[in-house]
Amino acid sequence: MTDQTPLRSGGRAARRAARAAPLAAHMRPIRPGMEGGQYRPLSDADMQAIHTAALDALETIGLCDAPPSGVAYLTGGGALLGDDGRIRFPRALVEDTLAKANRSVTLFARDPARDLQLSGNRVHYGTAGAAVHLVDVAGNNYRECGVQDLHDAARITDVLDNIHFLQRPMVCRDITDNAEMDINTIYACCSGTTKHVGTSFTDPAYVKDALEMLHMIAGGEDKWRERPFVLNSNCFVVPPMKFATESCQVMEACIEGGMPVLLLSAGMAGATAPSTVAGAIVQAVAECLAGLVYVNAVKPGHPAVFGTWPFGLDLRSGAMTGGSGEQALLTAGCAQMHHFYGVPGGAAAGIADAKMPDMQAGWEQMCSNVMAGLSGLNMVYEAAGMHASLLGFCHESLILGDDLIGQALRCVRGIEVNEETLALDQMREVCIGGPGHYLGTEQTLSRMETDHVYPALGNRSSPKEWEELGKPELVPNATRRKEEILSQRSQARFDPVTDKAIRERFNIHLPA
Amino acid sequence: MTDQTPLRSGGRAARRAARAAPLAAHMRPIRPGMEGGQYRPLSDADMQAIHTAALDALETIGLCDAPPSGVAYLTGGGALLGDDGRIRFPRALVEDTLAKANRSVTLFARDPARDLQLSGNRVHYGTAGAAVHLVDVAGNNYRECGVQDLHDAARITDVLDNIHFLQRPMVCRDITDNAEMDINTIYACCSGTTKHVGTSFTDPAYVKDALEMLHMIAGGEDKWRERPFVLNSNCFVVPPMKFATESCQVMEACIEGGMPVLLLSAGMAGATAPSTVAGAIVQAVAECLAGLVYVNAVKPGHPAVFGTWPFGLDLRSGAMTGGSGEQALLTAGCAQMHHFYGVPGGAAAGIADAKMPDMQAGWEQMCSNVMAGLSGLNMVYEAAGMHASLLGFCHESLILGDDLIGQALRCVRGIEVNEETLALDQMREVCIGGPGHYLGTEQTLSRMETDHVYPALGNRSSPKEWEELGKPELVPNATRRKEEILSQRSQARFDPVTDKAIRERFNIHLPA
Repeated sequence: MTDQTPLRSGGRAARRAARAAPLAAHMRPIRPGMEGGQYRPLSDADMQAIHTAALDALETIGLCDAPPSGVAYLTGGGALLGDDGRIRFPRALVEDTLAKANRSVTLFARDPARDLQLSGNRVHYGTAGAAVHLVDVAGNNYRECGVQDLHDAARITDVLDNIHFLQRPMVCRDITDNAEMDINTIYACCSGTTKHVGTSFTDPAYVKDALEMLHMIAGGEDKWRERPFVLNSNCFVVPPMKFATESCQVMEACIEGGMPVLLLSAGMAGATAPSTVAGAIVQAVAECLAGLVYVNAVKPGHPAVFGTWPFGLDLRSGAMTGGSGEQALLTAGCAQMHHFYGVPGGAAAGIADAKMPDMQAGWEQMCSNVMAGLSGLNMVYEAAGMHASLLGFCHESLILGDDLIGQALRCVRGIEVNEETLALDQMREVCIGGPGHYLGTEQTLSRMETDHVYPALGNRSSPKEWEELGKPELVPNATRRKEEILSQRSQARFDPVTDKAIRERFNIHLPA
Repeated sequence: MTDQTPLRSGGRAARRAARAAPLAAHMRPIRPGMEGGQYRPLSDADMQAIHTAALDALETIGLCDAPPSGVAYLTGGGALLGDDGRIRFPRALVEDTLAKANRSVTLFARDPARDLQLSGNRVHYGTAGAAVHLVDVAGNNYRECGVQDLHDAARITDVLDNIHFLQRPMVCRDITDNAEMDINTIYACCSGTTKHVGTSFTDPAYVKDALEMLHMIAGGEDKWRERPFVLNSNCFVVPPMKFATESCQVMEACIEGGMPVLLLSAGMAGATAPSTVAGAIVQAVAECLAGLVYVNAVKPGHPAVFGTWPFGLDLRSGAMTGGSGEQALLTAGCAQMHHFYGVPGGAAAGIADAKMPDMQAGWEQMCSNVMAGLSGLNMVYEAAGMHASLLGFCHESLILGDDLIGQALRCVRGIEVNEETLALDQMREVCIGGPGHYLGTEQTLSRMETDHVYPALGNRSSPKEWEELGKPELVPNATRRKEEILSQRSQARFDPVTDKAIRERFNIHLPA
């Protein structure tokens, strides 16, 4: 179903040589931006019903708590401010916004080869979150996380093929000044990876300094505005149906500064959103439509990601849970609504409730990650490293997540059906007067690298080989890989002149 | 999208009382036989192309090595025996068979409440395989498995809600006489669970004794024939495109004895089947169509499961692998072909390549299990407990698999969209003059048991609670659960008179 180019080179020696070298990007079995969409949990009628309910909610319930500037933008655009302080959105206003909103968004990266093209069913996986703990696997322990942990996560992400972007997954708990924390978060991320970065701001006043640093990293404001490589992950709404006043002001400042925006609605199904999967999706869709109207009222066509992120709740305890089947459905259903509207979207998947990278973590992370991919979600946030229902981030789990997401991406790529893959001629040659097996056929050999995703740390040996290898263990091997990555010099570091200038202007906590 | 009955009882006390008791079967959030089909990796044109290629393969390549009896049945039905010894299947013969084959099959269980109705997109998960090792998690070791291990697996399966059937997952390596092994395999399975059982035979001559024992268990041949609760898992084909002569004779004997048949084609993609996902599916479909013609030539309408079980291969080593994305696609694609033909089908999923129940095992087992369910596979074989690419079986992993499959089944159930679940009225009440959250709404409370699947061993506590609980570990907790299950008396045991009679007639290795 997708455009795979089989590796075709003459002769076995050439093939061996080709296999020894890393595959060219276009020949790899999996890539960022593969197209999902084969999984559709919602029927067309279901999507229409969700859309209608969301429009009703916007027209009759509306949202309160917009900042004065937001009230002006929104009412100027055609929304109505009620006596109860709620802003209501006439159906036509929402439909007009959808008609003119961006159908595709490029999320730039410092390395242009790593830009992400969001549209249709194109799937990308990356980190996100605001974990307050680092998971220490060797000590079987949770500890507060800091700026070095964040930078290490960025550096690890930088070398993992299947982690396509780095949204800040951890809070720098060791930086008590919020302005410094916001600056250092961006520094720690951008100096660790040349992939696309996402971040948040604790106060609208901090955006200006951040933009100044980003201009320095980019080599000037014009260069930044041409290819803004950092996105503002913006919780513009406090579900249910209230604008987050300060975050809206952050959003306005980011739009002004040319920074793309992730419109993030993070309702908890059963607490701040309806407990039903459909109801939580309705509310998230309504809130993000309000956000989309807002963004387009500030600046028509400004790049925005439709961030319906409803989370699950364990109703026995009232605590968040992200590893459930309900969570996977919430996310996949949201992806379908993004396609219904034809707007680039993101949602959360890959969250483990498990405290450590154990079997539970594996099944929880795979369930929502593979379903998000198959549903064609553009941006799969929190896809790797997240434990304890988002409270902990784990470097080893991030590394293992690269393997896990590799297999999910293979599923997203799907089943190619054409004359060569149907293999009827091959079957005939093998069965009638042939060797009776396919091990040595031209097709098997030529496709062995382009069709198959091999795990880096996942173990496929037989019990006998496994014993001979000293019974390798997954998590300690991930720790070794982590140490190997972090012992190498990062290719994402800023050039010394820029770095010096940044450090003279800002209080950078990471050692030079 | 499915028919969930929400729990509606008056008053909070009644709800509390209702929650304390186990939910009635029809109110449980998940059940055997939920309908998948929301995931479709193949387009209609893809399925047509696979069907056409399979028909071509049957018509022009055909299968060799049928036993003389099979040659007689097949040529009597309209197949053609060529000078090369291959039996070829005219297109019309296959189409006629498909027109009259069973559209639905009931797989009976000793407990009628546990019968499985195979049709459409109804999904059931269970064990299967022929592992030769038991995975000893405490010792981090693989050892040969025996009849007691098999019986323990049956007893554990008996109490796990989300393991719907027991096909023999392990070989009794401690019974050297094959005739005794086959009898004891059935005894160990059936005396351990009242769920549907699947088994194999090493020799056609052993079927007679097995049937004699099954008649004793059933309380007479008539009772057995009315509700045959054991299926013959039959590898009737040695891919590519060769009948397995002796297995075909086993199949004929089983059909004669009234035992349903699983037509199992287990090609390895890249070795005994084409390496491409589409090609491996074509060959498996062709082989199972040949098997379906065979069964219907012996006895029209005999209950048969279309067992396209193509496996993945790691082409770097030439060894089998079952934990890959390619495996998940193979299985999901096969499920769609079952629906294309409208015949009940089964395939393999849930296989871990991981040696132990670690994070790798979790992601591998979930990937193919959830995709199999979403594709609407009737019988998901090998869904729990299988490690080391089918070489090892693990009791702890079986127990954890119940949690894992529970979440997969929640995904299969899907997203219900109706006026109540869309929750617009609830949203209005909560947001306008209401409490601003959904924690205490009638809908949240009334649906908390019927909508949500809670893990039994999966841990959802916060890091703080987790520490206070002494950092519970998943696998040791599964071991404790195993010991608890095995310390109780099995409700599946045969009545003493029957058991005595069986033991007088056969050499039963399990202690009485």
